[in-house]
Amino acid sequence: MKQVAVILSGSGVFDGAELHEAVLTLLAIEQEGASYQCFAPDVNQLHVVNHLTGEVSEGEARNVLVESARIARGDIKPVTECDVTAFDTLILPGGFGAAKNLCTFAVDGENCTFNEEVLTVCKAFAQAKKPAAYACIAPALAAKVYGNKTKLTIGNDEATAGGLNALGATHVECPVDEVVVDNDAKLVTTPAYMLAQSISEANASITKMVKTVLAMK
Amino acid sequence: MKQVAVILSGSGVFDGAELHEAVLTLLAIEQEGASYQCFAPDVNQLHVVNHLTGEVSEGEARNVLVESARIARGDIKPVTECDVTAFDTLILPGGFGAAKNLCTFAVDGENCTFNEEVLTVCKAFAQAKKPAAYACIAPALAAKVYGNKTKLTIGNDEATAGGLNALGATHVECPVDEVVVDNDAKLVTTPAYMLAQSISEANASITKMVKTVLAMK
Repeated sequence: MKQVAVILSGSGVFDGAELHEAVLTLLAIEQEGASYQCFAPDVNQLHVVNHLTGEVSEGEARNVLVESARIARGDIKPVTECDVTAFDTLILPGGFGAAKNLCTFAVDGENCTFNEEVLTVCKAFAQAKKPAAYACIAPALAAKVYGNKTKLTIGNDEATAGGLNALGATHVECPVDEVVVDNDAKLVTTPAYMLAQSISEANASITKMVKTVLAMK
Repeated sequence: MKQVAVILSGSGVFDGAELHEAVLTLLAIEQEGASYQCFAPDVNQLHVVNHLTGEVSEGEARNVLVESARIARGDIKPVTECDVTAFDTLILPGGFGAAKNLCTFAVDGENCTFNEEVLTVCKAFAQAKKPAAYACIAPALAAKVYGNKTKLTIGNDEATAGGLNALGATHVECPVDEVVVDNDAKLVTTPAYMLAQSISEANASITKMVKTVLAMK
């Protein structure tokens, strides 16, 4: 049975991991006959967003690992404990958390900084030539990890795509129910909620991504 | 297209709506060709639980509606705005939030109190003879709403089942991938994470519940 490491970035689309993408990723992994372990960095979120109003909750702080534990029902480890030799595949769902907490692409674009602990794990999978999948805006991290003109997608937003190209990737436009595969890098990306208009569309995106990356040798 | 009202109870299994159950409910509704609107009560949670340690975060307060908005990607309304005439079906996913924030069954058992706004909406669906489905521990609310020996399930936990019977229901044991249907009440219940050992099992439970309640006339 393939073992999948899943890196989460909080719990909620506007300041953490996108909940539909994260939950549907976990389901798809099991439905493909694999199993998962969730990880997250033990750092504070960039900020906390009130998801009802869309406004930043001034003065409120939440921890990425603690909030991600909500998605994992408590079964989650600090990302520093993710040993690449124990896993076959790496998956990062999206949500603003991927571009606010795992890196700062959402606020700094191509000049963003990256969480070093997360970057170390992502690079370890790339260097070990183990397949990885990044959904939604998480390919911002993949652009940094793989560079070298690696093909990836965030859908079709020109400004965002330009930022990923500036980080060293080659952005390829992609519809919501498809994936972009770079076979040399063993990297699978999909737009998910960068394009999805409904949970069904997000599910089509996530399911195809998980199936594709788990079929890679 | 059938319109489904979904009442959430926060965001996270230990103090809110169970995230897998909630997300998989929304997906199943769409996959059955129906659409949904999420609601939640605009009240503070009973408490906030650190999902990494399992401990209560003393002094921290979170609002049920604001946290539930994380699951609904911001598209959620106060439960007082749920007009039964605009919907065909009502669904409540589980999680401790259903038994801590929508009622206090988790702490007070059969002597629990109920959120009056939520109870009013649930009773309106029952009185209008519109089908409703309650998952996991949410049948604690159904026991109060329907009473009258209505058949329902929370799986097979004897103490919990006894509490529901004391509230006026008739508990029926049920495996995780099945549902209990009371055709007179038009009520569907399923154990979900009261029994599920994995997200796949929870999905089997939730999917069957949603299919069954949406097939009711």
